[in-house]
Amino acid sequence: MKSKTTVMHHTVRFGDCDPAGIVFFPNFNRWCDAASLHFFMSNGIPRWTELERTHTIIGTPILENHTQFRNSASYPDELQIYTTVVEWNAKTFKMQHLVKRGETLICESLETRIFCKRLDSGELKSIAIPDFVLAACCEA
Amino acid sequence: MKSKTTVMHHTVRFGDCDPAGIVFFPNFNRWCDAASLHFFMSNGIPRWTELERTHTIIGTPILENHTQFRNSASYPDELQIYTTVVEWNAKTFKMQHLVKRGETLICESLETRIFCKRLDSGELKSIAIPDFVLAACCEA
Amino acid sequence: MKSKTTVMHHTVRFGDCDPAGIVFFPNFNRWCDAASLHFFMSNGIPRWTELERTHTIIGTPILENHTQFRNSASYPDELQIYTTVVEWNAKTFKMQHLVKRGETLICESLETRIFCKRLDSGELKSIAIPDFVLAACCEA
Amino acid sequence: MKSKTTVMHHTVRFGDCDPAGIVFFPNFNRWCDAASLHFFMSNGIPRWTELERTHTIIGTPILENHTQFRNSASYPDELQIYTTVVEWNAKTFKMQHLVKRGETLICESLETRIFCKRLDSGELKSIAIPDFVLAACCEA
Repeated sequence: MKSKTTVMHHTVRFGDCDPAGIVFFPNFNRWCDAASLHFFMSNGIPRWTELERTHTIIGTPILENHTQFRNSASYPDELQIYTTVVEWNAKTFKMQHLVKRGETLICESLETRIFCKRLDSGELKSIAIPDFVLAACCEA
Repeated sequence: MKSKTTVMHHTVRFGDCDPAGIVFFPNFNRWCDAASLHFFMSNGIPRWTELERTHTIIGTPILENHTQFRNSASYPDELQIYTTVVEWNAKTFKMQHLVKRGETLICESLETRIFCKRLDSGELKSIAIPDFVLAACCEA
Repeated sequence: MKSKTTVMHHTVRFGDCDPAGIVFFPNFNRWCDAASLHFFMSNGIPRWTELERTHTIIGTPILENHTQFRNSASYPDELQIYTTVVEWNAKTFKMQHLVKRGETLICESLETRIFCKRLDSGELKSIAIPDFVLAACCEA
Repeated sequence: MKSKTTVMHHTVRFGDCDPAGIVFFPNFNRWCDAASLHFFMSNGIPRWTELERTHTIIGTPILENHTQFRNSASYPDELQIYTTVVEWNAKTFKMQHLVKRGETLICESLETRIFCKRLDSGELKSIAIPDFVLAACCEA
Protein backbone atom coordinates (compact mmCIF):
# COMPACT_ATOMS: atom_id res chain seq x y z
CA MET A 1 0.00 0.00 0.00
CA LYS A 2 1.58 3.19 -1.20
CA SER A 3 0.94 6.25 0.88
CA LYS A 4 -0.15 9.52 -0.67
CA THR A 5 2.09 12.55 -0.30
CA THR A 6 0.87 15.96 0.82
CA VAL A 7 2.54 19.37 0.80
CA MET A 8 2.16 21.99 3.52
CA HIS A 9 3.41 25.53 3.02
CA HIS A 10 4.99 27.52 5.80
CA THR A 11 6.51 30.99 5.95
CA VAL A 12 9.36 31.41 8.43
CA ARG A 13 8.79 34.33 10.82
CA PHE A 14 11.29 36.59 12.60
CA GLY A 15 10.24 35.14 15.96
CA ASP A 16 11.01 31.60 14.75
CA CYS A 17 14.70 32.54 14.53
CA ASP A 18 17.29 32.62 17.28
CA PRO A 19 20.18 34.98 18.10
CA ALA A 20 22.28 33.27 15.41
CA GLY A 21 19.67 34.55 12.93
CA ILE A 22 18.48 31.11 11.82
CA VAL A 23 15.44 28.98 12.62
CA PHE A 24 15.57 27.66 16.18
CA PHE A 25 15.58 23.94 15.37
CA PRO A 26 12.68 22.70 17.55
CA ASN A 27 10.44 24.87 15.37
CA PHE A 28 11.07 22.44 12.50
CA ASN A 29 9.57 19.73 14.69
CA ARG A 30 6.57 21.96 15.43
CA TRP A 31 6.02 22.45 11.71
CA CYS A 32 6.49 18.76 10.93
CA ASP A 33 3.92 17.94 13.60
CA ALA A 34 1.53 20.34 11.89
CA ALA A 35 2.38 18.69 8.57
CA SER A 36 1.52 15.32 10.08
CA LEU A 37 -2.01 16.43 10.97
CA HIS A 38 -2.23 18.29 7.66
CA PHE A 39 -1.48 14.97 5.92
CA PHE A 40 -4.38 13.21 7.61
CA MET A 41 -6.84 16.07 7.21
CA SER A 42 -5.90 16.63 3.56
CA ASN A 43 -6.73 12.98 3.03
CA GLY A 44 -10.16 13.36 4.58
CA ILE A 45 -9.57 12.26 8.18
CA PRO A 46 -11.45 14.56 10.62
CA ARG A 47 -9.45 16.60 13.10
CA TRP A 48 -8.53 14.84 16.37
CA THR A 49 -11.14 16.64 18.47
CA GLU A 50 -13.88 15.27 16.24
CA LEU A 51 -12.31 11.83 16.01
CA GLU A 52 -12.22 11.69 19.79
CA ARG A 53 -15.97 12.27 19.82
CA THR A 54 -16.76 9.72 17.12
CA HIS A 55 -14.07 7.04 17.61
CA THR A 56 -12.42 7.94 20.97
CA ILE A 57 -9.20 8.31 18.95
CA ILE A 58 -7.22 11.22 20.38
CA GLY A 59 -4.55 11.43 17.70
CA THR A 60 -1.17 10.00 16.77
CA PRO A 61 1.30 10.40 19.64
CA ILE A 62 4.94 10.21 18.64
CA LEU A 63 7.24 7.43 19.84
CA GLU A 64 10.43 8.39 18.10
CA ASN A 65 11.75 11.21 16.00
CA HIS A 66 14.90 11.35 13.92
CA THR A 67 15.69 14.66 12.26
CA GLN A 68 18.65 15.50 10.05
CA PHE A 69 19.41 19.16 9.49
CA ARG A 70 20.94 19.82 6.07
CA ASN A 71 20.74 23.58 5.56
CA SER A 72 19.69 26.47 7.72
CA ALA A 73 16.65 28.63 7.01
CA SER A 74 15.71 32.12 8.10
CA TYR A 75 12.83 34.55 7.78
CA PRO A 76 11.04 35.23 5.47
CA ASP A 77 11.81 31.93 3.73
CA GLU A 78 8.90 30.11 2.14
CA LEU A 79 9.15 26.42 3.01
CA GLN A 80 7.37 23.39 1.59
CA ILE A 81 6.94 20.29 3.75
CA TYR A 82 6.41 17.06 1.81
CA THR A 83 4.82 14.41 4.01
CA THR A 84 4.30 10.74 3.34
CA VAL A 85 4.05 7.49 5.29
CA VAL A 86 7.03 5.31 4.40
CA GLU A 87 5.99 2.33 6.52
CA TRP A 88 2.61 1.11 7.80
CA ASN A 89 2.93 -1.53 10.50
CA ALA A 90 0.23 -3.23 12.56
CA LYS A 91 0.32 -0.67 15.32
CA THR A 92 2.94 1.89 14.30
CA PHE A 93 3.70 3.90 11.20
CA LYS A 94 6.72 5.86 10.02
CA MET A 95 6.06 9.27 8.63
CA GLN A 96 8.65 11.16 6.62
CA HIS A 97 8.75 14.93 6.29
CA LEU A 98 11.04 16.64 3.79
CA VAL A 99 11.30 20.34 4.54
CA LYS A 100 12.44 22.18 1.42
CA ARG A 101 12.97 25.73 0.22
CA GLY A 102 12.40 25.26 -3.48
CA GLU A 103 15.03 22.73 -4.56
CA THR A 104 17.06 23.01 -1.35
CA LEU A 105 16.52 20.36 1.32
CA ILE A 106 16.48 22.10 4.71
CA CYS A 107 15.84 19.10 6.92
CA GLU A 108 14.27 15.69 6.92
CA SER A 109 12.41 14.17 9.78
CA LEU A 110 11.33 10.59 10.31
CA GLU A 111 8.66 10.09 12.96
CA THR A 112 7.37 6.84 14.44
CA ARG A 113 3.80 7.29 15.59
CA ILE A 114 0.85 5.31 16.88
CA PHE A 115 -2.89 5.79 16.90
CA CYS A 116 -4.25 6.14 20.43
CA LYS A 117 -7.58 5.86 22.19
CA ARG A 118 -8.44 7.37 25.53
CA LEU A 119 -9.75 4.74 27.92
CA ASP A 120 -12.53 5.50 30.40
CA SER A 121 -9.80 5.67 33.05
CA GLY A 122 -8.30 8.61 31.16
CA GLU A 123 -5.26 6.60 30.14
CA LEU A 124 -4.09 6.41 26.53
CA LYS A 125 -3.88 3.06 24.72
CA SER A 126 -2.42 2.35 21.30
CA ILE A 127 -4.71 0.68 18.77
CA ALA A 128 -4.33 -0.98 15.40
CA ILE A 129 -4.21 1.52 12.56
CA PRO A 130 -7.86 1.94 11.57
CA ASP A 131 -8.85 0.61 8.15
CA PHE A 132 -10.59 3.85 7.21
CA VAL A 133 -7.28 5.65 7.77
CA LEU A 134 -5.40 3.27 5.49
CA ALA A 135 -8.11 3.53 2.84
CA ALA A 136 -8.03 7.32 2.94
CA CYS A 137 -4.26 7.80 2.98
CA CYS A 138 -3.08 5.26 0.40
CA GLU A 139 -3.13 5.31 -3.38
CA ALA A 140 -5.98 3.29 -4.82
CA MET B 1 -9.53 41.86 50.51
CA LYS B 2 -5.83 42.11 49.89
CA SER B 3 -4.38 39.55 47.53
CA LYS B 4 -1.28 37.58 48.38
CA THR B 5 1.79 37.98 46.16
CA THR B 6 3.78 35.09 44.77
CA VAL B 7 7.16 34.93 43.04
CA MET B 8 8.01 32.62 40.16
CA HIS B 9 11.59 32.21 38.98
CA HIS B 10 12.47 31.83 35.34
CA THR B 11 15.78 31.49 33.51
CA VAL B 12 15.85 32.97 30.01
CA ARG B 13 17.08 30.47 27.39
CA PHE B 14 18.92 31.02 24.10
CA GLY B 15 15.87 29.80 22.18
CA ASP B 16 13.66 32.41 23.89
CA CYS B 17 15.65 35.15 22.14
CA ASP B 18 15.25 36.49 18.63
CA PRO B 19 17.72 37.59 15.93
CA ALA B 20 18.13 40.94 17.77
CA GLY B 21 19.55 38.88 20.64
CA ILE B 22 16.80 39.77 23.12
CA VAL B 23 13.75 37.94 24.45
CA PHE B 24 11.06 37.63 21.77
CA PHE B 25 8.30 39.57 23.54
CA PRO B 26 5.41 37.05 23.38
CA ASN B 27 7.55 34.83 25.59
CA PHE B 28 6.99 37.29 28.44
CA ASN B 29 3.26 36.63 28.07
CA ARG B 30 3.92 32.88 28.14
CA TRP B 31 5.84 33.27 31.38
CA CYS B 32 3.23 35.57 32.90
CA ASP B 33 0.57 33.01 32.05
CA ALA B 34 2.66 30.40 33.86
CA ALA B 35 3.03 32.85 36.77
CA SER B 36 -0.75 33.21 36.87
CA LEU B 37 -1.28 29.48 37.40
CA HIS B 38 1.74 29.42 39.73
CA PHE B 39 -0.05 32.07 41.83
CA PHE B 40 -3.16 29.93 42.24
CA MET B 41 -1.31 26.67 42.83
CA SER B 42 1.09 28.29 45.32
CA ASN B 43 -1.99 29.41 47.22
CA GLY B 44 -3.40 25.90 47.36
CA ILE B 45 -5.76 25.83 44.39
CA PRO B 46 -5.50 22.51 42.50
CA ARG B 47 -4.32 22.52 38.91
CA TRP B 48 -6.98 23.12 36.25
CA THR B 49 -7.21 19.49 35.14
CA GLU B 50 -8.15 18.48 38.67
CA LEU B 51 -10.49 21.44 39.15
CA GLU B 52 -12.29 20.47 35.96
CA ARG B 53 -12.92 17.04 37.45
CA THR B 54 -14.08 18.33 40.83
CA HIS B 55 -15.75 21.66 39.98
CA THR B 56 -16.03 21.66 36.16
CA ILE B 57 -13.85 24.79 36.29
CA ILE B 58 -11.46 24.71 33.35
CA GLY B 59 -9.28 27.63 34.33
CA THR B 60 -9.06 31.40 34.00
CA PRO B 61 -9.28 32.47 30.36
CA ILE B 62 -7.89 35.91 29.63
CA LEU B 63 -10.10 38.75 28.38
CA GLU B 64 -7.55 41.51 28.13
CA ASN B 65 -3.84 41.95 28.46
CA HIS B 66 -1.84 45.13 28.77
CA THR B 67 1.92 44.79 28.83
CA GLN B 68 4.52 47.53 29.11
CA PHE B 69 8.07 46.67 28.18
CA ARG B 70 10.64 48.66 30.17
CA ASN B 71 13.97 46.93 29.59
CA SER B 72 15.12 44.10 27.39
CA ALA B 73 16.34 40.78 28.73
CA SER B 74 18.51 38.08 27.22
CA TYR B 75 19.83 34.64 28.07
CA PRO B 76 20.90 33.50 30.63
CA ASP B 77 19.14 36.16 32.72
CA GLU B 78 17.46 35.02 35.90
CA LEU B 79 14.05 36.65 36.13
CA GLN B 80 11.61 36.94 39.02
CA ILE B 81 7.91 37.35 38.30
CA TYR B 82 5.90 38.94 41.13
CA THR B 83 2.21 38.18 40.77
CA THR B 84 -0.74 39.60 42.64
CA VAL B 85 -4.41 40.31 42.05
CA VAL B 86 -4.96 44.07 42.11
CA GLU B 87 -8.73 43.92 41.65
CA TRP B 88 -11.33 41.28 42.46
CA ASN B 89 -14.69 41.94 40.82
CA ALA B 90 -17.85 39.85 40.79
CA LYS B 91 -16.93 37.94 37.67
CA THR B 92 -13.54 39.30 36.61
CA PHE B 93 -10.22 39.92 38.27
CA LYS B 94 -7.14 41.91 37.35
CA MET B 95 -3.83 40.20 37.82
CA GLN B 96 -0.57 42.11 37.78
CA HIS B 97 2.80 40.56 36.93
CA LEU B 98 6.03 42.46 37.49
CA VAL B 99 8.88 40.77 35.66
CA LYS B 100 12.17 41.80 37.24
CA ARG B 101 15.86 40.99 36.96
CA GLY B 102 16.97 41.80 40.47
CA GLU B 103 16.11 45.47 40.94
CA THR B 104 15.50 46.12 37.24
CA LEU B 105 11.91 46.10 36.01
CA ILE B 106 11.82 44.28 32.66
CA CYS B 107 8.11 44.45 31.98
CA GLU B 108 4.77 44.67 33.67
CA SER B 109 1.66 42.95 32.55
CA LEU B 110 -1.91 43.54 33.64
CA GLU B 111 -4.32 40.75 32.76
CA THR B 112 -8.11 40.71 33.05
CA ARG B 113 -9.32 37.17 33.55
CA ILE B 114 -12.45 35.22 34.39
CA PHE B 115 -13.16 31.84 35.91
CA CYS B 116 -14.86 29.51 33.44
CA LYS B 117 -16.89 26.32 33.54
CA ARG B 118 -17.40 23.93 30.69
CA LEU B 119 -21.09 23.33 30.04
CA ASP B 120 -22.39 19.93 28.97
CA SER B 121 -22.63 21.36 25.45
CA GLY B 122 -18.85 21.83 25.50
CA GLU B 123 -19.15 25.61 25.58
CA LEU B 124 -17.33 27.73 28.14
CA LYS B 125 -19.27 29.96 30.55
CA SER B 126 -17.91 32.52 32.99
CA ILE B 127 -18.85 32.09 36.64
CA ALA B 128 -18.61 34.16 39.82
CA ILE B 129 -15.18 33.96 41.40
CA PRO B 130 -15.48 30.98 43.76
CA ASP B 131 -15.34 31.74 47.48
CA PHE B 132 -12.70 29.09 48.10
CA VAL B 133 -10.45 30.89 45.62
CA LEU B 134 -10.87 34.22 47.39
CA ALA B 135 -10.26 32.61 50.76
CA ALA B 136 -7.10 30.91 49.54
CA CYS B 137 -5.60 33.84 47.67
CA CYS B 138 -6.20 36.76 50.04
CA GLU B 139 -4.47 37.80 53.23
CA ALA B 140 -6.38 36.74 56.33
CA MET C 1 -1.08 60.52 6.48
CA LYS C 2 -3.27 57.48 6.22
CA SER C 3 -1.58 54.15 6.69
CA LYS C 4 -2.09 51.30 4.28
CA THR C 5 -3.65 48.08 5.61
CA THR C 6 -2.25 44.63 4.96
CA VAL C 7 -3.67 41.16 5.53
CA MET C 8 -1.68 38.16 6.71
CA HIS C 9 -3.16 34.68 6.63
CA HIS C 10 -2.49 32.15 9.34
CA THR C 11 -3.71 28.60 9.94
CA VAL C 12 -4.02 27.58 13.58
CA ARG C 13 -2.16 24.34 14.36
CA PHE C 14 -2.84 21.64 16.95
CA GLY C 15 0.36 22.58 18.79
CA ASP C 16 -0.79 26.21 19.08
CA CYS C 17 -3.63 25.06 21.35
CA ASP C 18 -3.57 24.34 25.06
CA PRO C 19 -5.21 21.67 27.23
CA ALA C 20 -8.47 23.66 27.12
CA GLY C 21 -8.43 23.00 23.37
CA ILE C 22 -8.14 26.66 22.35
CA VAL C 23 -5.25 28.82 21.14
CA PHE C 24 -2.77 29.52 23.93
CA PHE C 25 -3.10 33.31 24.00
CA PRO C 26 0.59 34.37 23.70
CA ASN C 27 0.50 32.76 20.25
CA PHE C 28 -1.78 35.58 19.11
CA ASN C 29 1.01 37.99 20.03
CA ARG C 30 3.50 35.88 18.08
CA TRP C 31 1.27 36.05 15.02
CA CYS C 32 0.64 39.79 15.44
CA ASP C 33 4.39 40.31 15.63
CA ALA C 34 4.73 38.40 12.38
CA ALA C 35 1.92 40.53 10.93
CA SER C 36 3.82 43.65 11.95
CA LEU C 37 6.88 42.67 9.91
CA HIS C 38 4.59 41.40 7.15
CA PHE C 39 3.06 44.90 7.02
CA PHE C 40 6.44 46.56 6.45
CA MET C 41 7.71 43.98 3.98
CA SER C 42 4.44 43.97 2.01
CA ASN C 43 4.92 47.71 1.69
CA GLY C 44 8.41 47.34 0.28
CA ILE C 45 10.59 47.76 3.38
CA PRO C 46 13.46 45.24 3.39
CA ARG C 47 13.65 42.67 6.17
CA TRP C 48 15.41 43.78 9.37
CA THR C 49 18.62 41.83 8.68
CA GLU C 50 19.09 43.76 5.44
CA LEU C 51 18.05 47.07 6.97
CA GLU C 52 20.65 46.57 9.69
CA ARG C 53 23.32 46.25 6.99
CA THR C 54 22.15 49.26 4.99
CA HIS C 55 20.75 51.63 7.67
CA THR C 56 21.88 50.08 11.02
CA ILE C 57 18.15 49.82 11.79
CA ILE C 58 17.52 46.58 13.67
CA GLY C 59 13.75 46.63 13.66
CA THR C 60 10.78 47.95 15.61
CA PRO C 61 10.99 46.91 19.26
CA ILE C 62 7.72 47.00 21.14
CA LEU C 63 7.11 49.37 24.06
CA GLU C 64 3.57 48.51 24.90
CA ASN C 65 0.98 45.99 23.90
CA HIS C 66 -2.72 45.98 24.62
CA THR C 67 -4.69 42.95 23.47
CA GLN C 68 -8.40 42.30 23.87
CA PHE C 69 -9.60 38.74 23.39
CA ARG C 70 -13.13 38.56 21.97
CA ASN C 71 -13.60 34.96 20.85
CA SER C 72 -11.54 31.82 21.12
CA ALA C 73 -10.01 30.04 18.15
CA SER C 74 -8.81 26.49 17.66
CA TYR C 75 -7.17 24.35 15.00
CA PRO C 76 -7.57 24.19 12.05
CA ASP C 77 -9.09 27.68 11.94
CA GLU C 78 -7.99 29.95 9.10
CA LEU C 79 -7.33 33.41 10.50
CA GLN C 80 -6.84 36.74 8.77
CA ILE C 81 -4.81 39.46 10.50
CA TYR C 82 -5.56 42.99 9.33
CA THR C 83 -2.72 45.35 10.18
CA THR C 84 -2.55 49.11 9.98
CA VAL C 85 -0.79 51.99 11.70
CA VAL C 86 -3.38 54.06 13.55
CA GLU C 87 -0.94 56.71 14.80
CA TRP C 88 2.43 57.93 13.53
CA ASN C 89 4.26 60.06 16.08
CA ALA C 90 7.74 61.57 15.91
CA LYS C 91 9.45 58.57 17.45
CA THR C 92 6.69 56.06 18.14
CA PHE C 93 3.85 54.55 16.18
CA LYS C 94 0.74 52.61 17.14
CA MET C 95 -0.01 49.53 15.13
CA GLN C 96 -3.38 47.84 15.24
CA HIS C 97 -3.96 44.18 14.43
CA LEU C 98 -7.44 42.77 14.01
CA VAL C 99 -7.37 38.98 14.09
CA LYS C 100 -10.47 37.64 12.41
CA ARG C 101 -11.95 34.31 11.36
CA GLY C 102 -14.09 35.41 8.47
CA GLU C 103 -16.53 37.91 9.95
CA THR C 104 -15.77 36.95 13.57
CA LEU C 105 -13.33 39.14 15.50
CA ILE C 106 -11.05 36.87 17.52
CA CYS C 107 -8.84 39.49 19.13
CA GLU C 108 -7.48 42.94 18.60
CA SER C 109 -4.04 44.07 19.55
CA LEU C 110 -2.67 47.59 19.75
CA GLU C 111 1.11 47.81 19.82
CA THR C 112 3.28 50.86 20.49
CA ARG C 113 6.61 50.45 18.73
CA ILE C 114 9.75 52.41 17.88
CA PHE C 115 12.39 52.19 15.20
CA CYS C 116 15.80 51.36 16.67
CA LYS C 117 19.43 51.57 15.59
CA ARG C 118 22.25 49.58 17.04
CA LEU C 119 25.06 51.88 18.23
CA ASP C 120 28.70 50.91 17.88
CA SER C 121 28.61 50.09 21.61
CA GLY C 122 26.03 47.40 20.84
CA GLU C 123 23.28 49.35 22.61
CA LEU C 124 19.94 50.03 20.94
CA LYS C 125 18.75 53.62 20.41
CA SER C 126 15.36 54.81 19.18
CA ILE C 127 15.34 57.04 16.10
CA ALA C 128 12.82 59.21 14.30
CA ILE C 129 10.57 57.20 12.00
CA PRO C 130 12.46 57.22 8.70
CA ASP C 131 10.87 59.18 5.83
CA PHE C 132 11.22 56.26 3.44
CA VAL C 133 9.12 54.16 5.82
CA LEU C 134 6.36 56.76 5.95
CA ALA C 135 6.42 57.14 2.19
CA ALA C 136 6.18 53.39 1.66
CA CYS C 137 3.50 52.65 4.24
CA CYS C 138 1.02 55.50 3.72
CA GLU C 139 -1.58 56.09 1.04
CA ALA C 140 -0.41 58.55 -1.61
CA MET D 1 38.14 11.54 27.90
CA LYS D 2 35.05 11.15 29.99
CA SER D 3 32.53 13.95 29.80
CA LYS D 4 31.05 15.51 32.88
CA THR D 5 27.28 15.29 33.41
CA THR D 6 25.09 18.23 34.33
CA VAL D 7 21.49 18.43 35.50
CA MET D 8 19.05 21.13 34.49
CA HIS D 9 15.68 21.48 36.24
CA HIS D 10 12.54 22.41 34.38
CA THR D 11 8.93 22.82 35.47
CA VAL D 12 6.33 21.95 32.84
CA ARG D 13 3.81 24.77 32.30
CA PHE D 14 0.15 24.65 31.21
CA GLY D 15 1.08 26.38 27.94
CA ASP D 16 3.65 23.67 27.15
CA CYS D 17 0.82 21.14 26.86
CA ASP D 18 -1.44 20.44 23.92
CA PRO D 19 -5.15 19.64 23.59
CA ALA D 20 -4.40 16.03 24.58
CA GLY D 21 -3.25 17.45 27.92
CA ILE D 22 0.38 16.35 27.58
CA VAL D 23 3.61 18.14 26.67
CA PHE D 24 3.66 19.09 22.99
CA PHE D 25 6.74 17.08 21.97
CA PRO D 26 8.85 19.77 20.25
CA ASN D 27 9.03 21.44 23.66
CA PHE D 28 11.24 18.57 24.83
CA ASN D 29 13.68 19.55 22.08
CA ARG D 30 13.53 23.18 23.21
CA TRP D 31 14.39 22.12 26.76
CA CYS D 32 17.16 19.78 25.61
CA ASP D 33 18.64 22.63 23.59
CA ALA D 34 18.58 24.73 26.74
CA ALA D 35 20.20 21.83 28.61
CA SER D 36 22.92 21.72 25.97
CA LEU D 37 23.92 25.33 26.61
CA HIS D 38 23.42 24.79 30.34
CA PHE D 39 25.97 21.96 30.12
CA PHE D 40 28.62 24.20 28.58
CA MET D 41 27.94 27.17 30.84
CA SER D 42 27.86 25.01 33.98
CA ASN D 43 31.29 23.81 32.94
CA GLY D 44 32.65 27.34 32.67
CA ILE D 45 32.24 28.06 28.95
CA PRO D 46 30.96 31.63 28.38
CA ARG D 47 27.61 32.13 26.70
CA TRP D 48 27.64 32.16 22.90
CA THR D 49 27.25 35.94 22.58
CA GLU D 50 30.46 36.42 24.55
CA LEU D 51 32.27 33.59 22.76
CA GLU D 52 31.39 35.20 19.44
CA ARG D 53 33.14 38.37 20.61
CA THR D 54 36.22 36.60 21.95
CA HIS D 55 36.59 33.58 19.63
CA THR D 56 34.12 34.26 16.75
CA ILE D 57 32.44 31.01 17.86
CA ILE D 58 28.69 31.41 17.48
CA GLY D 59 27.60 28.20 19.18
CA THR D 60 26.96 24.54 18.49
CA PRO D 61 24.50 24.12 15.63
CA ILE D 62 22.77 20.77 15.49
CA LEU D 63 23.25 18.34 12.61
CA GLU D 64 21.08 15.50 13.75
CA ASN D 65 18.64 14.75 16.49
CA HIS D 66 17.21 11.43 17.57
CA THR D 67 14.60 11.50 20.31
CA GLN D 68 12.76 8.56 21.86
CA PHE D 69 9.63 9.31 23.83
CA ARG D 70 9.06 6.85 26.67
CA ASN D 71 6.39 8.42 28.88
CA SER D 72 4.25 11.49 28.64
CA ALA D 73 4.55 14.45 30.97
CA SER D 74 2.15 17.21 31.90
CA TYR D 75 2.03 20.35 34.02
CA PRO D 76 3.12 20.95 36.73
CA ASP D 77 5.67 18.13 36.50
CA GLU D 78 9.15 18.85 37.72
CA LEU D 79 11.63 17.43 35.23
CA GLN D 80 15.37 16.83 35.48
CA ILE D 81 17.47 16.79 32.33
CA TYR D 82 20.76 14.89 32.63
CA THR D 83 23.20 15.97 29.93
CA THR D 84 26.50 14.46 28.93
CA VAL D 85 28.67 14.13 25.83
CA VAL D 86 28.83 10.46 24.84
CA GLU D 87 31.22 10.93 21.92
CA TRP D 88 33.82 13.60 21.11
CA ASN D 89 35.01 13.43 17.52
CA ALA D 90 37.39 15.71 15.65
CA LYS D 91 34.68 18.06 14.44
CA THR D 92 31.43 16.67 15.84
CA PHE D 93 30.18 15.55 19.21
CA LYS D 94 27.20 13.53 20.38
CA MET D 95 25.29 14.91 23.31
CA GLN D 96 22.82 12.80 25.24
CA HIS D 97 19.92 14.22 27.25
CA LEU D 98 17.89 12.04 29.60
CA VAL D 99 14.69 13.81 30.59
CA LYS D 100 13.38 12.31 33.81
CA ARG D 101 10.63 12.89 36.35
CA GLY D 102 12.24 11.43 39.42
CA GLU D 103 12.92 7.80 38.54
CA THR D 104 10.72 7.82 35.42
CA LEU D 105 12.41 8.31 32.07
CA ILE D 106 10.27 10.66 29.98
CA CYS D 107 12.42 10.86 26.87
CA GLU D 108 15.96 10.59 25.69
CA SER D 109 17.51 12.69 23.01
CA LEU D 110 20.78 12.19 21.18
CA GLU D 111 22.08 15.25 19.35
CA THR D 112 24.98 15.48 16.92
CA ARG D 113 26.42 18.98 17.02
CA ILE D 114 29.39 20.98 15.74
CA PHE D 115 31.19 24.09 16.88
CA CYS D 116 30.84 26.91 14.36
CA LYS D 117 32.58 30.18 13.57
CA ARG D 118 31.11 33.04 11.66
CA LEU D 119 33.34 33.99 8.71
CA ASP D 120 33.77 37.62 7.64
CA SER D 121 31.39 36.82 4.80
CA GLY D 122 28.69 36.09 7.38
CA GLU D 123 28.70 32.38 6.56
CA LEU D 124 29.03 29.74 9.27
CA LYS D 125 31.94 27.27 9.20
CA SER D 126 32.48 24.25 11.42
CA ILE D 127 35.75 24.11 13.38
CA ALA D 128 37.64 21.53 15.41
CA ILE D 129 36.31 21.23 18.95
CA PRO D 130 38.37 23.78 20.87
CA ASP D 131 40.83 22.38 23.42
CA PHE D 132 39.56 24.71 26.14
CA VAL D 133 36.11 23.21 25.68
CA LEU D 134 37.41 19.67 26.06
CA ALA D 135 39.46 20.64 29.10
CA ALA D 136 36.46 22.29 30.75
CA CYS D 137 33.88 19.62 30.00
CA CYS D 138 35.78 16.40 30.73
CA GLU D 139 36.69 14.72 33.99
CA ALA D 140 40.30 15.37 34.99
